[in-house]
Amino acid sequence: MTATEARPRQALDPADLDRIDRYWRAANYLSVGQIFLVDNPLLREPLRPEHIKPRLLGHWGTVPGLNFLYAHLSHQANKRGTEMMWIVGPGHGGPATVATAWLDGTYTDIYPDVTQDAEGMRKLFRQFSFPGGVPSHNAPEVPGSIHEGGELGYSLAHAHGAAFDNPGLVVATVIGDGEAETGPLAASWQSHRFSNPARDGAVLPILHLNGYKIANPSLLARIPEQELLSLLEGNGYRPHVVSADDPETAHARMADALGSALDEIADIQHNARESGRVSGARWPMLVLRSPKGWTGPHEVGGLPVEGTWRSHQIPLAAVRDDPEQMRALESWMHSYRPGELFDSSGAPLPEVCAPLPAPERRLSASPHANGGLLLKDLRLPDIRQYAVQVPEPGTEHHQATRVLGGYIRDVIRANPRTFRMMGPDETTSNKLDTAFEAGGRAWAAERLPTDEYLDPDGRVMEVLSEHLCQGWLEGYLLTGRHGLFNSYEAFVHIVDSMFNQHAKWLKVTRDLPWRRPISSLNYLLSSHVWQQDHNGFTHQDPGFLNHVLNKVPEIIRMYLPPDTNSALVTTDQCLRMRDTINVVVAGKHPALSFLSMDRAQAHLARGAGIWEWASTDDGAEPDVVLACAGDAPTRETLAAAALVREHLPELRVRVVNVVDLMRLTAAHPHGMSDRQFDALFTAHKPVIFAFHGYPSLIHRLTYRRNGHENLHVRGYKEEGTTTTPFDMLMLNDLDRFHLVMDVIDHLPGLGVRAAHLRQRMQDERMRCRAHTRVYGEDPPDIRDWTWG
Amino acid sequence: MTATEARPRQALDPADLDRIDRYWRAANYLSVGQIFLVDNPLLREPLRPEHIKPRLLGHWGTVPGLNFLYAHLSHQANKRGTEMMWIVGPGHGGPATVATAWLDGTYTDIYPDVTQDAEGMRKLFRQFSFPGGVPSHNAPEVPGSIHEGGELGYSLAHAHGAAFDNPGLVVATVIGDGEAETGPLAASWQSHRFSNPARDGAVLPILHLNGYKIANPSLLARIPEQELLSLLEGNGYRPHVVSADDPETAHARMADALGSALDEIADIQHNARESGRVSGARWPMLVLRSPKGWTGPHEVGGLPVEGTWRSHQIPLAAVRDDPEQMRALESWMHSYRPGELFDSSGAPLPEVCAPLPAPERRLSASPHANGGLLLKDLRLPDIRQYAVQVPEPGTEHHQATRVLGGYIRDVIRANPRTFRMMGPDETTSNKLDTAFEAGGRAWAAERLPTDEYLDPDGRVMEVLSEHLCQGWLEGYLLTGRHGLFNSYEAFVHIVDSMFNQHAKWLKVTRDLPWRRPISSLNYLLSSHVWQQDHNGFTHQDPGFLNHVLNKVPEIIRMYLPPDTNSALVTTDQCLRMRDTINVVVAGKHPALSFLSMDRAQAHLARGAGIWEWASTDDGAEPDVVLACAGDAPTRETLAAAALVREHLPELRVRVVNVVDLMRLTAAHPHGMSDRQFDALFTAHKPVIFAFHGYPSLIHRLTYRRNGHENLHVRGYKEEGTTTTPFDMLMLNDLDRFHLVMDVIDHLPGLGVRAAHLRQRMQDERMRCRAHTRVYGEDPPDIRDWTWG
Ligand SMILES: Cc1ncc(C[n+]2csc(CCOP(=O)(O)OP(=O)(O)O)c2C)c(N)n1
Ligand SMILES: Cc1ncc(C[n+]2csc(CCOP(=O)(O)OP(=O)(O)O)c2C)c(N)n1
Ligand SMILES: [Mg+2]
Ligand SMILES: [Mg+2]
Repeated sequence: MTATEARPRQALDPADLDRIDRYWRAANYLSVGQIFLVDNPLLREPLRPEHIKPRLLGHWGTVPGLNFLYAHLSHQANKRGTEMMWIVGPGHGGPATVATAWLDGTYTDIYPDVTQDAEGMRKLFRQFSFPGGVPSHNAPEVPGSIHEGGELGYSLAHAHGAAFDNPGLVVATVIGDGEAETGPLAASWQSHRFSNPARDGAVLPILHLNGYKIANPSLLARIPEQELLSLLEGNGYRPHVVSADDPETAHARMADALGSALDEIADIQHNARESGRVSGARWPMLVLRSPKGWTGPHEVGGLPVEGTWRSHQIPLAAVRDDPEQMRALESWMHSYRPGELFDSSGAPLPEVCAPLPAPERRLSASPHANGGLLLKDLRLPDIRQYAVQVPEPGTEHHQATRVLGGYIRDVIRANPRTFRMMGPDETTSNKLDTAFEAGGRAWAAERLPTDEYLDPDGRVMEVLSEHLCQGWLEGYLLTGRHGLFNSYEAFVHIVDSMFNQHAKWLKVTRDLPWRRPISSLNYLLSSHVWQQDHNGFTHQDPGFLNHVLNKVPEIIRMYLPPDTNSALVTTDQCLRMRDTINVVVAGKHPALSFLSMDRAQAHLARGAGIWEWASTDDGAEPDVVLACAGDAPTRETLAAAALVREHLPELRVRVVNVVDLMRLTAAHPHGMSDRQFDALFTAHKPVIFAFHGYPSLIHRLTYRRNGHENLHVRGYKEEGTTTTPFDMLMLNDLDRFHLVMDVIDHLPGLGVRAAHLRQRMQDERMRCRAHTRVYGEDPPDIRDWTWG
Repeated sequence: MTATEARPRQALDPADLDRIDRYWRAANYLSVGQIFLVDNPLLREPLRPEHIKPRLLGHWGTVPGLNFLYAHLSHQANKRGTEMMWIVGPGHGGPATVATAWLDGTYTDIYPDVTQDAEGMRKLFRQFSFPGGVPSHNAPEVPGSIHEGGELGYSLAHAHGAAFDNPGLVVATVIGDGEAETGPLAASWQSHRFSNPARDGAVLPILHLNGYKIANPSLLARIPEQELLSLLEGNGYRPHVVSADDPETAHARMADALGSALDEIADIQHNARESGRVSGARWPMLVLRSPKGWTGPHEVGGLPVEGTWRSHQIPLAAVRDDPEQMRALESWMHSYRPGELFDSSGAPLPEVCAPLPAPERRLSASPHANGGLLLKDLRLPDIRQYAVQVPEPGTEHHQATRVLGGYIRDVIRANPRTFRMMGPDETTSNKLDTAFEAGGRAWAAERLPTDEYLDPDGRVMEVLSEHLCQGWLEGYLLTGRHGLFNSYEAFVHIVDSMFNQHAKWLKVTRDLPWRRPISSLNYLLSSHVWQQDHNGFTHQDPGFLNHVLNKVPEIIRMYLPPDTNSALVTTDQCLRMRDTINVVVAGKHPALSFLSMDRAQAHLARGAGIWEWASTDDGAEPDVVLACAGDAPTRETLAAAALVREHLPELRVRVVNVVDLMRLTAAHPHGMSDRQFDALFTAHKPVIFAFHGYPSLIHRLTYRRNGHENLHVRGYKEEGTTTTPFDMLMLNDLDRFHLVMDVIDHLPGLGVRAAHLRQRMQDERMRCRAHTRVYGEDPPDIRDWTWG
């Protein structure tokens, strides 16, 4: 049960070790070449300034450790025939992933122009971090990568996402010791407690203790080893520590430790698969202690570099102008003995490539790292089965997420190994718990008789970490599966930055033909700003929509279904999509239904449309447009329309509902034309728009549209507390009475005539507020309001 | 060195235990009352439906554990005279913090209307989660709170922030076992490794293992105890476990464990303060295992409630309509024996309040929890000392952050105990490292001879966790000190949600007169989108500005200083501000200086102004306005202005620079009037606006301004990779040549006449791009361009 400093258990074939070492040296050589050279890749002539890149960009420090690990992982995958992929937390080590992919032949398979010869090597070097070339990170352009690692912290979560439902796969995951300080990574250590060794693949975490981050030591490298081991054991792991310095002993130790770890994984899986022991596994992990910038310049200008933070980026920054540094670079590169690694044409020698697994088993060529290759459509139940009956619009109440829960249950049943739902312990709170009927919550820790729906084979993943929900789901999607993340609307901001990174990944992959489309990332946001009940101001924030809108239009979609059937058809549509990020906001409380299933489908297809039954502008241009998006705003708009109809019967009112927000802007593939927009919203009439989120979002979508100056948006203006639903609306001037006041204020000429009505509307607001203060609830006429 | 199940070391005074128990019962009684009752607070008559709240809102499960802890903490603070505050991670336990504050008398001190008698108790009950009353959480309205705990995960980071530089303070911090699953909390365990026991106060973490979160068990409650202890020890703690179930033994155990922990803290501080042992302290912490919903209904409707997730919110949800539940509530409340707790007037009996510390030592009255009370202005050096010389605008290069580093160094020197700078290991990368001259980086773990600037007494806090940087800083500010967070621009999105919560806190406190203003939260964002060098697309995201803009105008400020002197005066101004969140974006690379110190000061005071030396519209209305905000866009705008001057000398061009973004919108305290806006930007002429961030932001700020339809914004449109700075600008059409093309395209009548020039501009772009592809750098004429 205690950690082991791995030592040779069995004699290792020296020839193997030699091959691993050659591969390592070759990868290091190619990495240094990428960072420094534009020409003279094989050093056939003495280095001259013109061979050196004018701007030296990249990160050397992490690279030799990564290459070391790749060589060993590759060797084991070969020896054992294991299906393996790797995830590189310190993704700034781009030279390593590119170098190894090139050595494997994978790079040339995908980019035929970068041949496995001297000319190809020259291109390989030149393109790295070069304008028009390839990025410095483990970016989508790099074969074998699902994790760019630009923003640190998500490697282990991605790895677990990749391993779920991939029983044959081992996901080796390098975690930077700096990365390990981040919150998301620190939380990720618990992921294995949700993993079922019978059904899921294995993650092999490799904590890369190279001692430093950018300019500081890393914490985990500076705590007593006993404490480190205690920490990792407390996280449920059995750590194998490999202290590497002298390459030769390092190879033997690593081969041994890795071998043991893979044996232990096999044992755990065997126990689970043969004997059903699916809980409480003590998974192996590796700790690699190696000097940062290992095998690089030991000292530069009298200052230590290898083994210090000074090797993080470019150890020889003045190489172009400083002849001494030039010589240092030359001897550094020669220290890898390129003559033993590449033949006269520049191709890697067979002795270097021998440890490579068969092409389809190469880590750099893992199909899992190009998940679209493996992706199959979901089997989706007929959405009409779940439809709620809506005989008359706006008369009956349904709970959108409650109904969705039943649909999701059946999606899970029909796709028992390719669909998961994630959530931060909010599935029940969001009223989606019917989904548990299809198999409960994934849980591999202790269970008690009083527990409900905990299930080692569960398909709903609940952990109180939005970061893990997002990271797992991303990993799952990137490896060719499907899923949905349900979250409170406000707290999804926790993953704003992860969303950014995933959006950037998708944007880039769309331009890489060899990357096949993956399933869209679906957010189902509930417990939204307009009805919090048990919570208050901290839980009121509809700003994720604004955040999403910063990313390129091609990949973002946002839906605000007005009712239950709309929520169903929207979700169904989202589950069929590819390479996008979809946001659906749906309520969990009983709310009025407006649309039958047929109408909901038509409405979604239109994205935005006139609700004729609520409008009084038949055939003519309306005097005012009441537009709305979101469930609560839609109800208020209809209530306002009813008030207008009653009190200002001569007004021609058009009610427009928007379910697909992106219809509003011309700058989106879903955007309607200006003509359509003018026809729907008019070009000159006042539009009172009741919106679920911050009003600015609607303005942002429409500021180039005709009549934008007549568009008056009500929405959340950051007022809130623990109070009643209607009081929340009033606090933000989004209630029916205020919407009527807005109509009066913005319809020319109406002000004076309708002054009485306006005053009554103010009185109504005061009446409602007073009621809440006395009775603690909204007045029944408000709460129970229906249309017609 | 191993964990201890605390057992009585010394006989505890039974009278003390009795008083603690009474206090606990009183607090529990008051908590249940808050959740359920609107009337009949002392149960003088049998409970009837009209005594019950119509909407039962709140969270019972966490409350009894919190009250238990408060009673014990309070007792120890009293006995030892310790200055203590507490932070409640599960802030949804609002009833507990309100109840204890009321028992302490603090509540009535602040809200005199809520008296310590039956009538006050009625108000106390009624107001809770009631419209017009108080929120359900540990919100700013609650005395003794700096941590609302609505969004879980930040308690321990806040606690450390509060303890820094408060050597006499003990910050007891309750961490929910659910909260412990979050990333930010998981990262926070390492915080003590940055704390210096000689100079800083102590944090006492109390992991509250009540076994559940909302609807799931919590992980840490379901792993083997040995693993849990190993985890906590690995995090550097010495855990004391208190298993509580039977109240009597629980009190004895807790008193003992807490006593030991406080003794150990005293020892560590003594060792540090007397013998200088400031590194490697092994801090105590508590683990409280108690049933969720302890002392509440054991079973309801045949289902177990106490000790399960069912007690998370309202254990008796149907109490108003179900007579059986009504009786259950009654006997539950009676089980606390209110007759022993409150006198006939409803005031707490002396036996209950006896363990209370003296008023100024009460946790609920800690002045640290109302930091503005303790806040002193910073001593700021004369900013003019740091000015760079700018004999002619746009001719010399300076590095804004490098110069700022010197200023910050001196701020640290002048305020050695009240100012800190935080950053995720980017201080050097952001070129602020001169600041280290004033004392280096805080670090209490192992040091090596090769290290630089690591210092147990350091004032710059570097940890690879944006969450910790933000959380520490918030805690530090909320307790009355000052600071600054330096971050890469892109990754500050990691704390979007923390920003939201802090912004909400500030908004609410502004309306609470008893809460005194605290120092503003300052972000210094560098390594911004326009020059990444070693990194690429993942590091390019200027969207934090958009995110910030969703919050109420009163508390947000955004500055885009165009050059070094502007960055200085802006930062200086931000450090003087209160109750706002300030964002400053400043470059780290050599960039042109435009403004002398005098001009920079005047320009900041104006917020936005004409740069006369660059304009050719003297005295007359311009034909076109070239507006800009941000360092790179400003340079490009000036270069474009120079091109226009050369090639279209007849055009009257006005150059306007915006440093205070909020000047642009009328809906902000800094906003200029429409007249000013028209005067500056004209009401009808085309404005070509070169902006640092996403163009939509400028539109959002200006869509209600005259002439908005003539405003054409260039900015980041989500195109990027690892490339040269000028190529980045070209990828986003923000380069000088494109700006000239924009002038041509938007000036009526110029199109045909200037077609040659337009074509030349396109050619220039192609020339520049081609240069980068061949040489890997921008053309020298671009790179070295100066004004005039
Ligand atoms: C979330 C985040 N914050 C900050 C950075 C800036 N950064 C880039 S590399 C690095 C250090 C990484 O250290 P480590 O994980 O140990 O990687 P290695 O030592 O292998 O390079 C930092 C802080 C980042 N990439 N991501
Ligand atoms: C970041 C975040 N995600 C989700 C929630 C929703 N939520 C509210 S309470 C709760 C469970 C809290 O469990 P724990 O921390 O153990 O507190 P306690 O058991 O003491 O109530 C959750 C998940 C939240 N408040 N914050
Ligand atoms: Mg490292
Ligand atoms: Mg709990």
